[in-house]
Amino acid sequence: MLFHSTDLNHYVVDVLRKAGLSAEDGKVVADNLVGANLRGVDSHGVTRLSIYVKRLQAGVVNPRPNVQVVEESDATLLIDGDDGMGQVVGKKAIDLGIEKAKQNGAVYIGVKRSTHFGTGAYFVQQGIEKDLITYAMSNAPSTMAPWGGIQPYIGTNPYAFGVPAGKHRPIIFDMATSVVARGKIITAAQEGKDIPEGWAIDKEGNPTTNAQAGLEGSVLPFGGPKGYSISLMIDILSGVLTGAGFGSHINNIYGDFDKPQNVGHFFQLIDISRLMPVEQFKQRMDQMIEEIKSSPKAAGVEEIFLPGEIEYNTEEKRKAEGIFLSKEVYEDLMQVGEQYGVDINPYTTTGSARER
Amino acid sequence: MLFHSTDLNHYVVDVLRKAGLSAEDGKVVADNLVGANLRGVDSHGVTRLSIYVKRLQAGVVNPRPNVQVVEESDATLLIDGDDGMGQVVGKKAIDLGIEKAKQNGAVYIGVKRSTHFGTGAYFVQQGIEKDLITYAMSNAPSTMAPWGGIQPYIGTNPYAFGVPAGKHRPIIFDMATSVVARGKIITAAQEGKDIPEGWAIDKEGNPTTNAQAGLEGSVLPFGGPKGYSISLMIDILSGVLTGAGFGSHINNIYGDFDKPQNVGHFFQLIDISRLMPVEQFKQRMDQMIEEIKSSPKAAGVEEIFLPGEIEYNTEEKRKAEGIFLSKEVYEDLMQVGEQYGVDINPYTTTGSARER
Repeated sequence: MLFHSTDLNHYVVDVLRKAGLSAEDGKVVADNLVGANLRGVDSHGVTRLSIYVKRLQAGVVNPRPNVQVVEESDATLLIDGDDGMGQVVGKKAIDLGIEKAKQNGAVYIGVKRSTHFGTGAYFVQQGIEKDLITYAMSNAPSTMAPWGGIQPYIGTNPYAFGVPAGKHRPIIFDMATSVVARGKIITAAQEGKDIPEGWAIDKEGNPTTNAQAGLEGSVLPFGGPKGYSISLMIDILSGVLTGAGFGSHINNIYGDFDKPQNVGHFFQLIDISRLMPVEQFKQRMDQMIEEIKSSPKAAGVEEIFLPGEIEYNTEEKRKAEGIFLSKEVYEDLMQVGEQYGVDINPYTTTGSARER
Repeated sequence: MLFHSTDLNHYVVDVLRKAGLSAEDGKVVADNLVGANLRGVDSHGVTRLSIYVKRLQAGVVNPRPNVQVVEESDATLLIDGDDGMGQVVGKKAIDLGIEKAKQNGAVYIGVKRSTHFGTGAYFVQQGIEKDLITYAMSNAPSTMAPWGGIQPYIGTNPYAFGVPAGKHRPIIFDMATSVVARGKIITAAQEGKDIPEGWAIDKEGNPTTNAQAGLEGSVLPFGGPKGYSISLMIDILSGVLTGAGFGSHINNIYGDFDKPQNVGHFFQLIDISRLMPVEQFKQRMDQMIEEIKSSPKAAGVEEIFLPGEIEYNTEEKRKAEGIFLSKEVYEDLMQVGEQYGVDINPYTTTGSARER
C-alpha cells in the first residue's frame, strides 16, 4: 500500500491523539516514525505504532508526561522523562539542550525514565539545523550477549551522530551497535524471511539464519569486541549514569506490559561556533566530502557515499513517490486505527478522497 | 631483553631530555609509552621512541611548546599545541579540561597543531582518577580508504573511553578504528611476520597477508561501514572542527620530515557527580561488572572479560615480572640513546648495575 508521507504522518497523529497524546506530541512521534520510513529505515518506521499504542493502553507509557530537569550544571542536564514516549521525552531534552548549548557552548544530557525513542537520526537532525554537532544514544532491552557470553545482557543500543555541511547535505550516521538493527530481524520474522548468518545466535549460542530463533537468542555486536565495547559505553552513559535501567534491568517493549521500560538516553550537543566560525567549518566539511566522493573507487563500486547520503537520497525519492508499506505492516497499522474508529483508507494514496 | 618498567621509564626520560624536552614533559611521554608496554600494547610502547626523536631532531616537533587555550566557552576549550609532542600537548589539554569539568560539570576539548599522542588510554586514566568519565580521540595520517574506495584518506583514528568503578577496576577501551591498530601491522613488518587476511588491502585494493604490502596499501575499518563512520566522526571532531589537518592533510610521522604533522585531538570529560552521587554510580558500575562476569559463557570461554580488564591483568604481571622487548625493538631503542651518549645497558634488568 502506498502512502504520501504527509498523509501517513496525519494518520499516526490522529491515532496517537485518540490514545491520549497532545496534537503537538503526536506530531513529534509521527515525524520520528515517518521520518524513518522516508529515510528507508522501515524497521523504525510506522511498524512501531501498534506496540506503542499497546503500551499506552496498558498504562505503562504516560501519554502526558511531565518531563523535567532534575539535575543541572553549566554543561550537563539530567532529565526525568516521567515514562513518556521516548520521542516526546527526547525532543524535550534536545530542545532544552539546544538552548543550553547555544548559551554555554555545549552540553551533555542524560535522560532517565523514558521509553523506546525510535530513530536517533531524528534528534540529530534537530541539532544540526541549529549548527550544533549532535549525538543521540539510547540503551535498550537486553538482546545482545556480553563478548564471550551467550545470554543477552545489553541492548543493540543505537549510536547516532551528525554534523552540518555547507553546500552538501549533512553527514549523519544512526547505527545499531549490533551487526544490524534488531528491528530488521523483527521485520524479517514478520515477513517470514531468513536472516544472513552472522547476525544472531540462537538461545544455545549456535549461529542461526532463522529470524525467530535469532530474536529468542542473542544478536551479535558489529565489529566483534569493539562494537560490543561501544554498546557497553552507551549503556553506561544512558543507563548507569542517569539512574535509568541498564543491562538486563530494562523492561521489554514487547513483553513487560505491567511496568514502564525505564529506558535511558544520552545526548550531546556542541556549538560549532565556539571552536570555529560556522562558515569555515562548513567549507572544511564540503572539502572533506568532495575529497571522499572523488576518491578512486573499489572494483564494482559506482559511487562512494558519505554516511547518511543514501538515506537523504531515499528521502527525496519517497517524498516524491510515496512510502510503500507491506501488506503485513499495513494491516497491523490499520488495526491500530480501527480500535479508535480511525479509518486508514482516506489516508492512503490509492484509497484517498482527501485533498492534498 | 627484560626491563623493569621504572628503569625503562627512566631511560626514555633521559633520552628525551637530551633531545630537548623538560624532565617533566619527558616523564609524561615516558609514562604514556611505558604505560602502553605495561598494558600489553607494545605497538604503542617504547618502539615509538626512535621516530619521536627523529622528528624532534628534524625540527618538526617542538620540544618546548607553548600550549595555550585559543578559544573558550563554559563547556568548550580549543587548544593550540604549538607542534609539541602529542603526549605533552594532550596532557596539558586534559589537565585544563579536568579543572574546567570540575568547575562547570563537563567539557569538550579540541586540540590542533599537535602530533602522535601515543596511547589514548593514558589520557583516559587521568580523567578516571578524578571521577570523570573520559574520552580521548585523535586523528592520524591517512592509512584507511573511504568505504567503497581503495586510496587511504582517513587514519586509523583511535577511540578511547573510560569510567571508574567501585571495588572493581575501571572499564577502559582504547581501540583503533581499523580492524587492528596500524602499529600492530608495523610491528609485524618489523618482525617479518605475516598478518591475517581482513586486516588490510594492498595498493591495488586486493586483500593481502603481507604486512609491508598492507602498510603501503590501506588498512580496513573495524565492522565495515560502521567502524568507518566512527573513524570519520573522530576526524571531523579532531580535525575539521579544531583547525588541525584532516583526511589526507595530516603529515606522515614516518615520511614528512620537513613539516609538522598538524594532528588534532578531541577529549571529553564529564563530572559524574553532576548527574549522580559518585558512590552510587560506582556501585551501579560494580553491579554491571558483576552481572557480566557471572553471565553464562560461550563454549570454550573460561572467563568473560570487561573492556580493559586483560590490560589491567597484563599490567600487574609486567609490573612484577618486567617488560620484555624483542631484539629488534631493543636494538632500535639502544641506538636512539647512543646518539646522545646514553648507554641503555645500566637500565636493563639483565645488565643492570643500578639500585632499585
